[in-house]
Formats: sequence, C-alpha cells, structure tokens
Amino acid sequence: MPDERLSDIGEFGLIREIARIAGRASAIAGIGDDAAVLDMPAGQVTLATVDMLVEGVHFRRSYMSPEEIGATALAVNISDIAAMGGIPRYALVSLAASPHTNVDLIRGIITGLVSVGKRFGVSLAGGNVTSTKGPLTIDVVMIGSAKRDEVVLRSGARPGDVIAVTGRLGARAAFRMSREAELESAPTFRVPVPRVEIGRRLAARHLAHAMIDLSDGLAGDIKHVCQASGVGAVLYETALPIADEARTTASALGTSAVDLALSGGEDYELLICLGPPDLETARSIAGDVGLTAVGRVLDAGSGVLLEHSGGTQRPLSTEGWKHF
Amino acid sequence: MPDERLSDIGEFGLIREIARIAGRASAIAGIGDDAAVLDMPAGQVTLATVDMLVEGVHFRRSYMSPEEIGATALAVNISDIAAMGGIPRYALVSLAASPHTNVDLIRGIITGLVSVGKRFGVSLAGGNVTSTKGPLTIDVVMIGSAKRDEVVLRSGARPGDVIAVTGRLGARAAFRMSREAELESAPTFRVPVPRVEIGRRLAARHLAHAMIDLSDGLAGDIKHVCQASGVGAVLYETALPIADEARTTASALGTSAVDLALSGGEDYELLICLGPPDLETARSIAGDVGLTAVGRVLDAGSGVLLEHSGGTQRPLSTEGWKHF
Repeated sequence: MPDERLSDIGEFGLIREIARIAGRASAIAGIGDDAAVLDMPAGQVTLATVDMLVEGVHFRRSYMSPEEIGATALAVNISDIAAMGGIPRYALVSLAASPHTNVDLIRGIITGLVSVGKRFGVSLAGGNVTSTKGPLTIDVVMIGSAKRDEVVLRSGARPGDVIAVTGRLGARAAFRMSREAELESAPTFRVPVPRVEIGRRLAARHLAHAMIDLSDGLAGDIKHVCQASGVGAVLYETALPIADEARTTASALGTSAVDLALSGGEDYELLICLGPPDLETARSIAGDVGLTAVGRVLDAGSGVLLEHSGGTQRPLSTEGWKHF
Repeated sequence: MPDERLSDIGEFGLIREIARIAGRASAIAGIGDDAAVLDMPAGQVTLATVDMLVEGVHFRRSYMSPEEIGATALAVNISDIAAMGGIPRYALVSLAASPHTNVDLIRGIITGLVSVGKRFGVSLAGGNVTSTKGPLTIDVVMIGSAKRDEVVLRSGARPGDVIAVTGRLGARAAFRMSREAELESAPTFRVPVPRVEIGRRLAARHLAHAMIDLSDGLAGDIKHVCQASGVGAVLYETALPIADEARTTASALGTSAVDLALSGGEDYELLICLGPPDLETARSIAGDVGLTAVGRVLDAGSGVLLEHSGGTQRPLSTEGWKHF
C-alpha cells in the first residue's frame, strides 16, 4: 500500500514490521521484550556507542533513498566500533516519526540498516518507536566487543608517531555540498564503509597507539586526538589523499579541495597514530583501501599545525562541522 | 549565566559540561571516545534497552523541572532492566536540541539523570549531542546484566499463574491528566521508582515466570505478555490497587479511576506472572512497595478479559497509550 501511514498500522504494527524485516537476531531475546538479551563473548569488554541522525541536519530525503538513510545510520555507528579496534555485534534503533509518515519510508530505512548489518555481522536486537511533531529522528545504538588489551583509545598518541588515514577524504562532503548547491554533475551518493577489518587487525597487532574515525573532518578529529593524548600535531597539506569527487566539486564550486578534505566531515575513514617503523605493516593491512601518512604527532607545546606546500606551517584553524 | 545558549558553548562545550556533571564513570573509558568501554561481569548476559522521550509527547517543560525530565528519562529505562530481573549498569544519552536551548535546561536534565543513576549504581558512560529544528529529544540507552538462567522474559506465563503488580496504579496518569485539564489540585509530580531490587530478587529465586514493566498501562501490557506467552488472562476490576491520586483526579474529572489504573500508562510498576504457591514469598520480597494479585493467566482460547464487581466478564477492550 503506497499510501499507508504509521497511524494506519500503529506503534505495535510498526514494531512487528521492523521485527519482520530484521529477521531472527542472534540475540538470546531480541525485539519485543523489555530489553534485548545479548550473548557477548567471554573475556572481552563491551563497547557501546550511540549516534542520532536528524532529518534536515544529517540527511535529506530529497537526495537520499530510505535505504541509504538506514544504511548510513548503521554504518556510522559501526565506524565508531571500528575506531576502537572492536567487533560490532548488536544494534538497537530508536525512531521518532510523525503519525503521517509513510510506512514504506520506515520499511526502507530498516531494510537499508539490516542490509549493512548483515554485511558486518550485526543483528538488529531491539529498539523503540515514538511519535514526534518534529523531524524524523533515528538514533542507533551499537554494541560491540574487544579484547581488553586490544582496545584503542584516542588518548594514546605519542610525539614522533606517524598520523595516517585510510581511504580518501572529502567525497561525502563533496556530495553534500554539490547537492546543496544544486550542481548539475553531483557525485553519486555513497554509504560510508566502516573500516572494521582494518581497525580490528591494527588493534590485534597492537600497531595503533590512538585511533578515531573521521566524522567531523580530519582537522577537527586530529584535535580531538591531540586533546585526549596531550600532544600536538602537524598535517602536511600536500600529503592529503583527496578524493577525486572533492577535487571536481571544489573546482565547480570555486572552493578549495584541501578544505573539503580537512573540514568537510563525514568521511568515516580511520585516523591512526602509529610508530614510524609500523607504517609499512599497517599499509599492507589496509590493502586496497589505502593508508596514507598525512602528518606527525608533536609535543603538546607545538599546537596543531598545517604545513603548506612551500613548507610554511600555520595553526590548523579549520574546524569541522558545528552542531550548535 | 542564566541566558547562556547551546550556540554559545558549542557541541564540544556541551559534551564537556555533561562529562563534568556525570563525573567519573565506572567504565574503563567513558564520555569522550568513539565508544564507551564497559567492564561487564563475567558469565552474565548483557541486557540492552533504549527509550526515546520527546518534548510535547512524553514530557512538558510547563509542569516538569529539567531535573525531573532527566530523572524520569533514566528511571523508565532502568525499569526495563528491572523487568528482565537484571541489574542496570551503564547509561548512554543522545540529546537533540535547538541551538537556542538554554544550557541550564540541559544541565538540569543531566543532573537529574545522574542523580537517579547514582541511586541505582548506573554510570553515564557516553552519548551524543546534535542539533534539531524539532522538539527537545532525549534518547537513553541502558545497559545491564543478569545471570543467563535468571533472565525473565515476557513469554513464560502459564495458565493458572497469578498475575500480580507492585505498588499502586494510575498516579502518574492522574498527574498528567490533571495538568492537561489544568485542575487546581493536581497531584505532585513523582519520578517513577524502578523496581530493580524486587525484580532482581524475584528473578534470582526463579519466582517470576514472566515479567513486564507497566509503561503502556496494565490493560495494554498484560496483552503484550499474553501475546508473547500464547496465553489468555482475566483481570479482576475490584482487585486493582488504585492509587489515591487516581481516585481523586478521576472524581474531579468525572472519569473512571479504574480506567486510569488500567490504561493511564506510565506506572513503571512490575507486572509479574507467578505460581499461586509463590505469591506469599513474592509479597514479602515486595515489602512496603506492596504486591497485589490482580488476575489469573488463562489458556490462549480464553482471550484477555476484565471481570467486573458483579462477576461478569468482558473482553478487556481498553488500550494503553497510542503513539500513532
């Protein structure tokens, strides 16, 4: 029924629909009880993260399909677990929607979410639906695990470490900006691919001193690492692995591809601080995804700097996406 | 600063404020990393639940203080863990708020949340803040644990079981309705008290065959248990432990106190199905909170019935709070 609304099927009809799409979770008890009952691996610590996506802030229906919205909501949470060196296991999802919402929109979101979940071994084990007069809001909880001595925090960067990033930067920001500017040749939308396997293997081999996933943008996220680790850093502008889409879009918009790569945000690549002798091993772990050295960790007094092509260094003033 | 807005302190200023109020979590790593790192007790299963509160739907600032909003948000999630027979351990909180939101409002909400957390041994270990153009939205994730063979599901009710509820019913609905009707003599607002200790002791002694917390209202929630257990039930109208506030408010509004107790919702008491010989033991466990037998589990073909004072039985048509 293309015109079926949430008010037609009700809260419990919606929960049944979600449970049907989610299929059987690997949880001991999943959707439909007061809490999900999760079987976690013995001898590991539990990792938990939550990320809220608000329509009009984090996604727009005009240029993302329902499946892409759901897939992205799960992928960005899996990315947080990847950045700890952990294995994602279970998701819970909270949805707030207007009673007038088309049921097919929610079906699509859950379908996208479940399909990314299957790819990464994550079961949808529970959640919650509610009405709102505000924008569609999706809050995804992700529960994972890791061996305690393999967890990688933001706080372990040491002066002398190489700063490296996986993949290429700026593509998702380029997509967003070109759609907002209504460019004719916008890049294709891509659901972020969380770097679970790379994060896990770097963690298991104790190669990463500190790790974070790039959500705010490299410039903002390196500052989070520096703050947590009590260090400074320098990034080399000429070393940045800028995505082709970022170059094309920046040129069409008359803006800077470097800025897109530094501050566009939503890359969901991993930033890793590691000892220089381990860079080659880490590169082979990253494989086709690629791993690029983009900077160095400095002592705390040095601040956070950007070195331009001519060798001049300036404080890295660029900031990531601001919520408030 | 009484007029300080979220836009004045920014996303990371807000996260620092939340971390300051939350204090040191018992987690291995808490607020400020990609994911919280939680130490869970060995040999237990993990319980996880999430519940979203939307301003104007679940709470109104006109009659709840910020502290009460935060306290309630955590209490209702702890209640879900209590209904599994589990121990609540960690909370994560997602907040969506307008940039114009007064920082003191958020401080108050977090203060209320943390204070209930301390009372129940729950650490605020992480979360997420975002902007929205919609209503203030608070999504609380609660992670707890239980011994695997002590987890109480909704699906274990057996024909012949006594249906019992803790505490008294209808007080919170009476409060809500009297404020909505702008009655002069509204009852005082009370933060729900999750029945953690009662749930845990019933579970540890294997007395509860099925358990649920009353969020939708007794009439709706008994139907959830019946559906999950494949059974029917009869509730005795004259046995309902109706709260004094529900009687007073019902009388002032010219409505039925029984309806308030059955369908008002938000009681956050426990509904327990247990063998008749165990009722007295369960009553002594409930202590001063009280435990009242309100019905019997029947076989599936009997449906879900309400027995009136004269002995006539009718299908329990009353339904709980509807979101859509």
